[in-house]
Amino acid sequence: MDFLGYVAGFLTTIAFLPQVVKAIKYGSTKDISLGMYILLCTGITLWIAYGFWLGAVPVILANGVTLVFAGIVLFCKIRNG
Amino acid sequence: MDFLGYVAGFLTTIAFLPQVVKAIKYGSTKDISLGMYILLCTGITLWIAYGFWLGAVPVILANGVTLVFAGIVLFCKIRNG
Repeated sequence: MDFLGYVAGFLTTIAFLPQVVKAIKYGSTKDISLGMYILLCTGITLWIAYGFWLGAVPVILANGVTLVFAGIVLFCKIRNG
Repeated sequence: MDFLGYVAGFLTTIAFLPQVVKAIKYGSTKDISLGMYILLCTGITLWIAYGFWLGAVPVILANGVTLVFAGIVLFCKIRNG
């Protein structure tokens, strides 16, 4: 049943990609919450640190990719308001 | 160092709350990606199922709360466009 965890992790990671595309394509991020992406990027960074401490490569990788996506949305939000 | 995991989980869970408040307060979700919240809610549901399979209460609880928040944003997005 570990595959369930991999599918779950894949979906919650890749989920941010459509938001990245939308934020870049339309350049409008007014309705997106700045607080959400600040908290999220901080939390994901801590997940990565925790993954290193655990020595859990899947935790590091999944959160690493999510941090890139969430970081791009945060950048767009700060730039565009 | 487990506290690091708890703090990380708390932040990535609570992160969605400002987005919920914003979506309800302003009623505008135009810049939010529908695809993101569909993928996210699906993925989180699988995390909860995986948590039940693992017997891991923290996984079930953290993802349960996140599903409520992400579900409200998805509902607002479907209703408001």
